[in-house]
Amino acid sequence: MTKIISLITDFGLSDHFVGTLKGTILNINPEVKIVDITHEIKSHDIFEAAFAIKCSYNYFPPQTIHLIVVDPGVGSKRRPIIATTDKYIFIAPDNGVLSFIYEDETFNRVLEITAKHYFLKNISSTFHGRDIFSPIAAWLSRGVNIDHFGKEIKDYLKLDLPKPAALENRIEGEIIHIDRFGNLISNISKEFFEKIKDKSGKDKFEINFHHLNIHKIGNYFAEVEEGQPCALFGSTNFLEICLNKKNASQILRAGKKDKVWIIFK
Amino acid sequence: MTKIISLITDFGLSDHFVGTLKGTILNINPEVKIVDITHEIKSHDIFEAAFAIKCSYNYFPPQTIHLIVVDPGVGSKRRPIIATTDKYIFIAPDNGVLSFIYEDETFNRVLEITAKHYFLKNISSTFHGRDIFSPIAAWLSRGVNIDHFGKEIKDYLKLDLPKPAALENRIEGEIIHIDRFGNLISNISKEFFEKIKDKSGKDKFEINFHHLNIHKIGNYFAEVEEGQPCALFGSTNFLEICLNKKNASQILRAGKKDKVWIIFK
Amino acid sequence: MTKIISLITDFGLSDHFVGTLKGTILNINPEVKIVDITHEIKSHDIFEAAFAIKCSYNYFPPQTIHLIVVDPGVGSKRRPIIATTDKYIFIAPDNGVLSFIYEDETFNRVLEITAKHYFLKNISSTFHGRDIFSPIAAWLSRGVNIDHFGKEIKDYLKLDLPKPAALENRIEGEIIHIDRFGNLISNISKEFFEKIKDKSGKDKFEINFHHLNIHKIGNYFAEVEEGQPCALFGSTNFLEICLNKKNASQILRAGKKDKVWIIFK
Repeated sequence: MTKIISLITDFGLSDHFVGTLKGTILNINPEVKIVDITHEIKSHDIFEAAFAIKCSYNYFPPQTIHLIVVDPGVGSKRRPIIATTDKYIFIAPDNGVLSFIYEDETFNRVLEITAKHYFLKNISSTFHGRDIFSPIAAWLSRGVNIDHFGKEIKDYLKLDLPKPAALENRIEGEIIHIDRFGNLISNISKEFFEKIKDKSGKDKFEINFHHLNIHKIGNYFAEVEEGQPCALFGSTNFLEICLNKKNASQILRAGKKDKVWIIFK
Repeated sequence: MTKIISLITDFGLSDHFVGTLKGTILNINPEVKIVDITHEIKSHDIFEAAFAIKCSYNYFPPQTIHLIVVDPGVGSKRRPIIATTDKYIFIAPDNGVLSFIYEDETFNRVLEITAKHYFLKNISSTFHGRDIFSPIAAWLSRGVNIDHFGKEIKDYLKLDLPKPAALENRIEGEIIHIDRFGNLISNISKEFFEKIKDKSGKDKFEINFHHLNIHKIGNYFAEVEEGQPCALFGSTNFLEICLNKKNASQILRAGKKDKVWIIFK
Repeated sequence: MTKIISLITDFGLSDHFVGTLKGTILNINPEVKIVDITHEIKSHDIFEAAFAIKCSYNYFPPQTIHLIVVDPGVGSKRRPIIATTDKYIFIAPDNGVLSFIYEDETFNRVLEITAKHYFLKNISSTFHGRDIFSPIAAWLSRGVNIDHFGKEIKDYLKLDLPKPAALENRIEGEIIHIDRFGNLISNISKEFFEKIKDKSGKDKFEINFHHLNIHKIGNYFAEVEEGQPCALFGSTNFLEICLNKKNASQILRAGKKDKVWIIFK
């Protein structure tokens, strides 16, 4: 069966970086299938990469190797790691980029990668994506046993992820991502909303965001007129604030970390 | 033989959307080859996607499945459809995105997709590219008979495409696309030009666009000096207005819907 | 063994161009693997493409076909060429885009492509990437002998590449590339630096760039505090000027052709 390596990086698409990384992988395993998730993570933005892998990993075939290289500490003492679940293998720098996955999944093991004989011969200090991470991914895809790459660690880094708060009769969340359409994705999950709503014992609620008051959680964008605001649980089950067919982030001048409140009445 | 799925979307490349869609396809058919045409269609711009598939579909191998997801009505009652010619299969929302293809090709059938058991189990209301369209494309690529997906429809949506007009001794067209080089592509095809020129019985002509008068249809950009205007029939046989090695759209401040006249003399 | 075609173009990702080119290749050889290096070369920027292929080609598997289509002279008399080393095949317009490779590699042959029966039937004058270059790459990947495509030439075009100068007690170089992180890559290679340093007989040196004086060549970005300047030999062994985790090009308002001096003391 065809092995798959998925890629998330902040390398952008205008340099040779992504191509060179793919060439390196294919030089070791020409039969592997490489799938881009995104290379347009904002430079050095570990959180954005953490969110991208959270939203996508689980849609890939079992045994996919997810390689994430957003690595502002490249060349320093930060460790390269491999983390495995029953279904997937993740390869990344140990900088917290897997934090959402650590929450969502049960991990079998997290290993520090130390087996230098699998790296490229000349290791630069600025492009470990090419020299360390992609060879490891390629050798894994060829079936090298994971034990050959390093030793288990327990103290891998977890980011302090922003959590919604359940206050008296309301939820306080914040925007954690803005997508290409300008939709504002909050950290309030459907599950959290329903749990707190049930606890509140109230039926009605109002969503407050910037100057907007939204009285309903809709099902799809086109329920409201073009340019009108709507709130809905998006494709990753987080509450989103949107303007139908318009860029909510630009028009509302809204960005990451802006607060969202759901007030139960 | 390797099956191919081509992709056109307005998902952009900075989110996880395209990767998630590909993961979903490969989870159903790991052997299919996925080819990006473009994901940078302007958000919700059905016409731009219609033009992109027109320019590209016919260069792909027979039996390619062309998947187009530019879908501002996602979640609403607009129908997902499959349209087949002898050579290709098209999957898209029924919003007119196949309008150019309906003109250029003879279709065997257009089906409304209704077979929900082929969809993902949990269907979001905002990401049918992942939940409906890509599973259908993947199952088709695995050889599931097209009849299993739904019933034939006749009332599929066609956009009112902008057509050039043949007026007395002249053609009036308009710009319908601006490419990455800033070249201005009009809706005047070579065939239309030659037909009207023949009818006019005249040999000479002049092309009027903004303040430019161009007296010749050239063969290639570098025929004129750098920065000088030229008109030629481009790679999709439409008349283009260009400035050699320069961005005509920016320099002329010209955009879509701007008029182009060819005056026969 | 799977054949690979790598791609570098200035087609951008918003038009159908790259997809159409890939469709054309797969129509001739559906089994070939196509790998994007980059399509975001600045329009018509031959030097930028030359640098991109220099940085990446050697990481690909042997027998990779590297296809580079940055072709401002498309349609004119400039020749399409094939250049071969023991390890790779390069296909490009003869406009100097292979200049770095001509320096780095020993070429077996450079051929002018003249065998029109391998081209597409209708050849546009503006999209030879589709009509000429990609069919040639595809037929080569199917094993057609290179001799069938044309005749050897000796007068292929070489760009006058910017070289660092060894002046009295100093090296004068210049910025030749700015990467997506804003790092400023100069034309001073590690080898050149070490050779001139040895000749100078001096141990200490100072790097001058804009208003900066840097007294050390570091090993990795994170050696200095966030936002602080550092100089290091990057992943392609050229001296880079960087600001840790910041965009040096933007903050220093520095660009291509800006001078860099290394003064030995």
